[in-house]
Amino acid sequence: MTHAPQDRAAAHATTPVGARVETAMRRALALAAQGPSYGPNPRVGCVLLDPGGRTVAEGFHRGAGTPHAEAAALADARSRGIDPRGTTAVVTLEPCAHHGRTGPCADALIEAGVAAVHVAVADPNPVATGGADRLRAVGIEVTTGILADAGENLLRTWLHAVRTGRPYVTLKLATSLDGRVAAPDGTSRWITGSRARAHAHTVRAQVDAIAVGSGTALADDPTLTARTIDGSLFEHQPLRVVVGRRPVPDDARLRGPGGELIHLPEHDPEVVLQRLAEREVRHVLVEGGPTLATALLAADAVDELHAYVAPVLLGAGATAVGDLGVTTIGEAARFTTQDITRLGDDVLMVARRAEPAQSVQPAQSVQSVQSGRLSRHTKEEI
Amino acid sequence: MTHAPQDRAAAHATTPVGARVETAMRRALALAAQGPSYGPNPRVGCVLLDPGGRTVAEGFHRGAGTPHAEAAALADARSRGIDPRGTTAVVTLEPCAHHGRTGPCADALIEAGVAAVHVAVADPNPVATGGADRLRAVGIEVTTGILADAGENLLRTWLHAVRTGRPYVTLKLATSLDGRVAAPDGTSRWITGSRARAHAHTVRAQVDAIAVGSGTALADDPTLTARTIDGSLFEHQPLRVVVGRRPVPDDARLRGPGGELIHLPEHDPEVVLQRLAEREVRHVLVEGGPTLATALLAADAVDELHAYVAPVLLGAGATAVGDLGVTTIGEAARFTTQDITRLGDDVLMVARRAEPAQSVQPAQSVQSVQSGRLSRHTKEEI
Ligand SMILES: NC(=O)c1ccc[n+]([C@@H]2O[C@H](COP(=O)([O-])OP(=O)(O)OC[C@H]3O[C@@H](n4cnc5c(N)ncnc54)[C@H](OP(=O)(O)O)[C@@H]3O)[C@@H](O)[C@H]2O)c1
Ligand SMILES: NC(=O)c1ccc[n+]([C@@H]2O[C@H](COP(=O)([O-])OP(=O)(O)OC[C@H]3O[C@@H](n4cnc5c(N)ncnc54)[C@H](OP(=O)(O)O)[C@@H]3O)[C@@H](O)[C@H]2O)c1
Repeated sequence: MTHAPQDRAAAHATTPVGARVETAMRRALALAAQGPSYGPNPRVGCVLLDPGGRTVAEGFHRGAGTPHAEAAALADARSRGIDPRGTTAVVTLEPCAHHGRTGPCADALIEAGVAAVHVAVADPNPVATGGADRLRAVGIEVTTGILADAGENLLRTWLHAVRTGRPYVTLKLATSLDGRVAAPDGTSRWITGSRARAHAHTVRAQVDAIAVGSGTALADDPTLTARTIDGSLFEHQPLRVVVGRRPVPDDARLRGPGGELIHLPEHDPEVVLQRLAEREVRHVLVEGGPTLATALLAADAVDELHAYVAPVLLGAGATAVGDLGVTTIGEAARFTTQDITRLGDDVLMVARRAEPAQSVQPAQSVQSVQSGRLSRHTKEEI
Repeated sequence: MTHAPQDRAAAHATTPVGARVETAMRRALALAAQGPSYGPNPRVGCVLLDPGGRTVAEGFHRGAGTPHAEAAALADARSRGIDPRGTTAVVTLEPCAHHGRTGPCADALIEAGVAAVHVAVADPNPVATGGADRLRAVGIEVTTGILADAGENLLRTWLHAVRTGRPYVTLKLATSLDGRVAAPDGTSRWITGSRARAHAHTVRAQVDAIAVGSGTALADDPTLTARTIDGSLFEHQPLRVVVGRRPVPDDARLRGPGGELIHLPEHDPEVVLQRLAEREVRHVLVEGGPTLATALLAADAVDELHAYVAPVLLGAGATAVGDLGVTTIGEAARFTTQDITRLGDDVLMVARRAEPAQSVQPAQSVQSVQSGRLSRHTKEEI
């Protein structure tokens, strides 16, 4: 804090604005995305601009225990022999104000003498928030909401966890076209093809934890590791979580190489998610089986679906989900499709929890969006 | 037949070959595709090339009762004041040799004095075949198999019907992600969204017949018409077929405006398809319900699946198909994906009957295509 407010006011006149800041934010978002999507910390990127709008330094957070993005960008500037004084910091997330392992980023920016700070997403973390206020208190201009949607999207799972206090839940389903996850004799290898399975492994490598019910743990003896195409382990291995009261056998593959094994002898989805939150899990991938999936869906605790669907018909065998209490079509659990990807013969549908307004919409109002002609035929689908 | 063989031999030396013929065949295929995909006749296109390889005339078949493609192309030439003598005919299907409503096309080409004929697909129709022989007998050079795959694909449903004597069967399913076609109370409007439903109507407008079981006819009182987005009828209305012994009520919508209603009081899929073949149905779209769909699948009579899948979970209610006699995963009914299309929030998966070699493949050999590492884990999907 070496500048008096009037010095800073002078600086404002020469800080870059508009398109230059947006371009820098796009770059900061791209940098942030290079950080790990797992771990307790958010992915953050930071770009420093000189008064002419030219990028002079960049940084991003590389995961727990490494410098925050702002510190990384300031260090990058100094390593190039550039004094960050008077630069504008463009950061994807509001600089933190708390003393963690690395000291508040807001203070680091103040001490470095930056002239202005532009932010995509305000920090919802009650422990870390206040960075913008701290910066403004010393006269630094702070704007938030630059490319806010892109910022929210990048931080979706982390923001959800911080705002709700429980992990973001992605439910993976691997089904036949008639919604079955196994044949009548219990065999399910393989419904989907090798490309779908390889994709599912890359998703595992991006989450904090993988959970299954004890039924699946006992029936399938899975490893729940994240593996590459050649079968070797990814560097990051998520926690392996088994939900249910029955113990995990001593000789289970789950006790072999891979992430830490956590056994949660619980049934209540709220309690399960609370336990995971205590372990700093921001994003859990639930891989079944049907009983656990149904319990989470019935508790409205599923934020995202990853449905791998194979061009296969079984006609019998376990279905992907059990009774959800739905009696009529208007009560169906509806999701909003984000993405459709073909994976060999299979398709991956990524869908997110529908907005409340949509999920409570009765069947009639769905019909009313039809053309006048169709909407008059109340008993006519086909 | 005004040319002696030696005249034709002289002509050969100056007929276009290679890339020019392929380019013309591509055009002929595009012309053929402009014809109607329904109706008893195949879609055929014809291009006439002069000895220099330039297109002098074109034609395609516009549906039953209109000239065949070859006749249309010859008429096109004459209408331009061009004598087709000495030209090369590039035709998607072997010219017919039978006397239908229009006389054999082979004879028309011979009489016109064409020098050579190039064909994509040989005519498998026992009544019409022999055109190539007839042309060769008078010394005209005939080659077949030019862009044969594209030709087979264009004529897929028609070729199937002619080769097997029964219609090509497309089974439409409209399901939730857990494979259900209705909620427990029987409501099913709407599982899929308006874009998926509009797409299904465009498919109806391309087939010869739509079939449902009597259970669906009674429960849903459908119209089974092909409608545009604004609810009006497409010009072509397929036959409406109800399969089952119970009668169609006098006040059923199926008796209203639309295609002819056919009631088949049968259960045996072979008999049903035979009856449709007798009505010159080449392509039938089966829209359920589960009982009829299951009977066709169990009889291995489904050639193509159109699965519209919505990001919806029901947890209970009727499943798309019933028991197929599958007990273990290796016996699953497998299809090969042709196309994945996003339609609003839904996805359409178009899949065709898998080649016999694939559908009888045991689970082990599917596993063996995995990496060495994965294939050793026989009990590990997840
Ligand atoms: N194709 C696929 O994608 C896929 C994926 C996974 C599994 N599967 C198949 O699914 C089958 C296993 O099915 P499943 O339903 O038994 O598996 P599950 O859901 O993995 O396990 C069920 C167990 O989870 C525990 N549990 C956790 N929360 C619960 C709650 N709220 N209510 C009741 N129980 C709760 C109970 O264990 P306790 O009794 O120990 O308390 C229950 O017995 C296997 O055949 C497996 O192959 C297929
Ligand atoms: N979401 C969707 O895509 C969709 C599509 C269609 C239907 N549905 C729903 O499906 C339900 C109707 O199901 P459903 O299974 O009753 O319908 P269905 O398959 O349309 O009709 C069943 C009837 O078909 C006749 N049938 C024809 N071949 C048969 C065979 N080989 N074996 C036995 N019977 C044969 C029998 O009629 P007889 O007894 O008269 O001989 C049988 O009762 C309705 O709730 C409807 O809304 C949903």
